[in-house]
Amino acid sequence: MSDVNAILLISCPDGKGIVAQISEFIFKNNGNIVHAAQHTSKDDKLFFMRIEWELNGFSLGRDEIPAAFTPLAEKLNMKWDLYFNDFVPRIAVFVSRHLHCLHDLILRQSMGELSAKIEAVISNHTDARDLALQFGMKFYHFPINKNNKSDQEESELKLLRELNIDLVVLARYMQIVTAKFLECYPQKVINIHHSFLPAFAGGNPYQQAYDRGVKIIGATGHYATEKLDEGPIIAQDVIKISHRDDVADIQMKGKDLERIVLARALRLHLENKVLVCGAKTIVFD
Amino acid sequence: MSDVNAILLISCPDGKGIVAQISEFIFKNNGNIVHAAQHTSKDDKLFFMRIEWELNGFSLGRDEIPAAFTPLAEKLNMKWDLYFNDFVPRIAVFVSRHLHCLHDLILRQSMGELSAKIEAVISNHTDARDLALQFGMKFYHFPINKNNKSDQEESELKLLRELNIDLVVLARYMQIVTAKFLECYPQKVINIHHSFLPAFAGGNPYQQAYDRGVKIIGATGHYATEKLDEGPIIAQDVIKISHRDDVADIQMKGKDLERIVLARALRLHLENKVLVCGAKTIVFD
Amino acid sequence: MSDVNAILLISCPDGKGIVAQISEFIFKNNGNIVHAAQHTSKDDKLFFMRIEWELNGFSLGRDEIPAAFTPLAEKLNMKWDLYFNDFVPRIAVFVSRHLHCLHDLILRQSMGELSAKIEAVISNHTDARDLALQFGMKFYHFPINKNNKSDQEESELKLLRELNIDLVVLARYMQIVTAKFLECYPQKVINIHHSFLPAFAGGNPYQQAYDRGVKIIGATGHYATEKLDEGPIIAQDVIKISHRDDVADIQMKGKDLERIVLARALRLHLENKVLVCGAKTIVFD
Amino acid sequence: MSDVNAILLISCPDGKGIVAQISEFIFKNNGNIVHAAQHTSKDDKLFFMRIEWELNGFSLGRDEIPAAFTPLAEKLNMKWDLYFNDFVPRIAVFVSRHLHCLHDLILRQSMGELSAKIEAVISNHTDARDLALQFGMKFYHFPINKNNKSDQEESELKLLRELNIDLVVLARYMQIVTAKFLECYPQKVINIHHSFLPAFAGGNPYQQAYDRGVKIIGATGHYATEKLDEGPIIAQDVIKISHRDDVADIQMKGKDLERIVLARALRLHLENKVLVCGAKTIVFD
Repeated sequence: MSDVNAILLISCPDGKGIVAQISEFIFKNNGNIVHAAQHTSKDDKLFFMRIEWELNGFSLGRDEIPAAFTPLAEKLNMKWDLYFNDFVPRIAVFVSRHLHCLHDLILRQSMGELSAKIEAVISNHTDARDLALQFGMKFYHFPINKNNKSDQEESELKLLRELNIDLVVLARYMQIVTAKFLECYPQKVINIHHSFLPAFAGGNPYQQAYDRGVKIIGATGHYATEKLDEGPIIAQDVIKISHRDDVADIQMKGKDLERIVLARALRLHLENKVLVCGAKTIVFD
Repeated sequence: MSDVNAILLISCPDGKGIVAQISEFIFKNNGNIVHAAQHTSKDDKLFFMRIEWELNGFSLGRDEIPAAFTPLAEKLNMKWDLYFNDFVPRIAVFVSRHLHCLHDLILRQSMGELSAKIEAVISNHTDARDLALQFGMKFYHFPINKNNKSDQEESELKLLRELNIDLVVLARYMQIVTAKFLECYPQKVINIHHSFLPAFAGGNPYQQAYDRGVKIIGATGHYATEKLDEGPIIAQDVIKISHRDDVADIQMKGKDLERIVLARALRLHLENKVLVCGAKTIVFD
Repeated sequence: MSDVNAILLISCPDGKGIVAQISEFIFKNNGNIVHAAQHTSKDDKLFFMRIEWELNGFSLGRDEIPAAFTPLAEKLNMKWDLYFNDFVPRIAVFVSRHLHCLHDLILRQSMGELSAKIEAVISNHTDARDLALQFGMKFYHFPINKNNKSDQEESELKLLRELNIDLVVLARYMQIVTAKFLECYPQKVINIHHSFLPAFAGGNPYQQAYDRGVKIIGATGHYATEKLDEGPIIAQDVIKISHRDDVADIQMKGKDLERIVLARALRLHLENKVLVCGAKTIVFD
Repeated sequence: MSDVNAILLISCPDGKGIVAQISEFIFKNNGNIVHAAQHTSKDDKLFFMRIEWELNGFSLGRDEIPAAFTPLAEKLNMKWDLYFNDFVPRIAVFVSRHLHCLHDLILRQSMGELSAKIEAVISNHTDARDLALQFGMKFYHFPINKNNKSDQEESELKLLRELNIDLVVLARYMQIVTAKFLECYPQKVINIHHSFLPAFAGGNPYQQAYDRGVKIIGATGHYATEKLDEGPIIAQDVIKISHRDDVADIQMKGKDLERIVLARALRLHLENKVLVCGAKTIVFD
C-alpha cells in the first residue's frame, strides 16, 4: 500500500550499542531499513545517526512511533526528530531584487525536483511580483527602511504563521534577519551567500573577489544565524575565474553557482539529511 | 592498550533485520562501532555493509571472531571478509617506462600516507631500476616479447608468491595482464587508465582525446579484469584542457591526474572501503 | 556615441606577419583593439584569430569594412567573418518533453544574460507550449513519426526562414536532425548531449552511466553534425556521482549540468568566441 | 638551427595601435609570432601583452633585440622584460619539515616537466637533507630562532647570490620572509599557502577549516609580499571535504592540492606567462 518511509535524526552522547539498540527497535517492529548512516564527533564525543525505514509492514502506526521510541531515546539521552518522506513542507522564499535563485527554485518545483511547496514569495521590493504570480504563488511586499524593520519583521512572522510556513529560504534577500525572527524558525532558515565563506563575508563579495584577484569564486548555502554569514554550512561550490573576468562577468558566473548551491543545500535539508553540530553540519548525502 | 580496529565487509541478500543482527553481534561482545555504512542494490536485491569497531574492550580475540561470526553469516547467507587496520599489505608495483605514478607512490609511502609497503617494483623495462633501488625497494626486470609473455608471467607469479605480495598495482604498466594472472589475485590488481573510462579505452588515450577535441580529460582507477579497461571503477577525476593544449600538454596535465586518481583508488582499497558488485563498486568513503 | 564593437573571426594558412598586418589594418583606420587572441594549429598549419575593436572613432563605417578588408583577406588567403556585438540573433529552441534547458534559457533571457532573443519554441510534443506562451514566445508543434519526418523538417525549415531565425538550439530535442537541415544552418545548430562525449554517445546515457558504474557524469555542448554526437565540442563539464545515486538521482544531477553546459556553449557562440577547425573547436574564452 | 623563442612581457598605458606597432616590430625583423595574448585593465587603463616569436629566421641577434626595441618601448612608455625559452632558471627551494611539495618538485624535475634546475634546498630544519642529497641537490641548514633571524637571512641572501639563484620557492617554509629579502627577489619568490586565500590566512589553516566546518578546502600559489598571504595570486584550486574528514584527513587531501597548485603556479611563472598588476596577476595561460 504505502511507499512512505520514516526517518529518524538522532544525536546523543557516544557509547557502545547505540546502533544495535536503534536498529533492534526497528527490527523488532518489523521495519525494513533502507538507509542508515552514522557519525561520531570525537571532539565532543557525540554520536549522530540518520536512519530511514519503510512504514510498509512496520508494526507501529505513524502516531505510535514517538511513544514507542521514547524509552530508548531517554535511556540513551538522545535528541531526536522523526520525519516522514511524504511530508511536503511549505516554503516562503524571501528575495530582494536578484531573482535568479527564485526563478531556479520555481523551475525545480515545476520539474518535480523539489519535495516542497513554495507557498509565498516575500520581498522588500516588487521586482519578484510578476514572476511569483505567474507561477501561482502568493506575493507579499514588505518595504523595509531604517525605522520600520522591526515592525515589518513582526508582520512577516505573523504572515508566516498564518500561511503555516515550515521553512524560510533567503534567496538573495540582502537583508539581515534578526535573532528574534530566527528564534521562531530554528534551523529552518536557509541562506545563500554569494562567496566561498569565510572568504568575503559581508557585502559585495564579487567586488571583493575582483579586487583581491582570486582565481576561483564560490557560493555557500547555510543555516542563517544571528551572526551574519557564520551559520552552519550545508553546501559550497566554486567556479574558476581569470583576469579576463570583470565584476559583471564574475556576477554572471556566480549566479549559476548560487542557484546550484542553494538548490543543493535546500534539497539536503528537505531530505532530512542535515544535522547541526555546534557551528558545523553533518550531511548524510 | 591496542588501538586496532576490526572491519567487516559484508554482502548478502537484502532482508529485514540485517543491520540489527550484525550490530547486535558486535554489541553483545562489547564492541564499540566507530564507522558503519550500508547500501542496498535494488537492481539485484543485495545488501552491502562495512562496519568497523574497536578491538580494545572487545570480548573476542582476533582469531575467535570468524568462528563466532559464522553462524550469523550462514543464517543471512553472507559473503564476508574480516580485516584489521594494523595489517600492512605488501605491494608489488608494475611499471613500464612512465615513472610518475611509481614516484608518487614512493612519496606517499615516505610521507606515511600509504598504509602499505611497496615491496617490489616489477617492469618489462629497466627505467625504474634506479628509482626503486634508491628508495630501498627490490627491482625485478621481466622483459616481455611476443613469444615469452606466458612464461614471464609464470615467473612473475612465482616471484609474487615468494615475496608474499598481497596487492598488485599496475602503475602505467602498459601490458595486458592475463586472466590466469588475475585469477591468482582476484580483486587484488588495481590499474590506472589514463582516460575517463569508458571514453578512450585502449591505447594512446591522450592522442585520442586530442584528436576528438574534448574540453576535459580524465583518469580512472579500477580493478583489472580480463577485458581491458572494463573492470569495476574505484575512482575517477578530470581536468580541463583547451585548444591551446597539444598532446604533450595533455600528457603533462594527465600525469597529475593519474597520480592522484591511482593514489585515491589505492587508499580506498587499502582502507577496505571498496566492495565489488558485478561490474561496479560500492565505495564507502 | 556608439559603444559597439566589431569582431573579426579569421582563419588562414599560417605565415609571418599575419598579426602585424591585421592589427595594422585596424590601427591605420584608427581603431582601438579591445581583445585579440590567436592560435596556430600545428597539425594543419592553420592560423586562427579573433580580434575585437571599438567602432567608436573607427574611420570606416560598418558597411565599408568588408570592402576595405577584402584585399588583405585575399592576400593572406583568409576565411573570415565580421560581427558586431549589438547584433541580437534570433533563436529557435527545439525541445522534446524535458523542459529544464528551455526553462533555464528563458531565465537567462529574462535576466539579460543572453545576448539573443528566443523567438520560437518548436517541439514534437506539446509539453513546452504553456511555458513558451507564458513568457511571450511563439510555440509550434510539429509531431513527428516515422513517415512524416522529412515533411515536417521541410515545414520547420520554412518556418525558420519566415521567422528569420539565426541560430537553432537543440535543448534536449531527442530527435536526429538531418543533413539537409544542418546544411541550411551550418555551424548554427547547437546541441546539448547529456553525457561526457565520446563516452555514452547515443540514447539513454544516464542509464549507460549507471550500468557502467562510473564515478563522474558529464554533459557536452557541441555543434550538431550529421553523425550523431560527433560534432565539434564547444563546452563540457562533469559532476561526481556515487553508488548511492540511482538513475533518477543521476538524471537530476545531470539536469543541472546540462543547463550550465548548454548555456556556456551558447554564450561562447553568441559572443563569437568559437571557431571550428575540422572536428574540433577553438574557443577564445 | 635554433628552436629558441623570444618572449616579451609588456605593460604600458592603454592606447590605440599598440598591438600593431609591437607586431610590426617583429614582422619587419622577419619574426614568426607563435603566441600572442593581451589584456586591458579598465580600472587603471593599462595594457598588458605577452608575445612570443621564433628566433629562427629573426633578423636580430638576441643581444641586439633590447636596443632595437627600446625606441618603441620609450614611445609607448612601456615596462618590458625580454625572455628566451632556453633559459633554465636556478631555483632555491625553502622548506621546513613538510616535504611533500619539495618531493613533488623533484619528481617533476626528474620527469623533465620543470624548465628549471633546483640548485639548492634551504631549511631551518634538517628533515629535507637526505632527500635533497639523494637527488644531487645541495642542502643548507639555517636554523632560525628569535634572535638570529635577521643574521640568518643575511647569510641566506649571500648564499643565493653565490649560487646565482634566479627564483626562490617557499615550499611550505613556515617562516615569514622579510621585506628586505623580498626586495632582493622582486616577484621572484613564490609561496604556497595551504588555504583558499583570503579564507584562513595565517597559521594552521586546515585546523581553521575544520573548526569552521567548510565543505571545500583550497590552496593558493602566490608571489610573496611583505604582508603575509596578501601577495598577487597566481593559481588556486580546491577539493571537497565532509564532516567525515578530521584534521588529519584534511591535511592529507590538502597536501595533494598544495603540490598541484604550487607546481601550476611555478610552471606559469617559468613559462613567463604571469604579469603582476598591483595586487593581482594577469595569467596568460
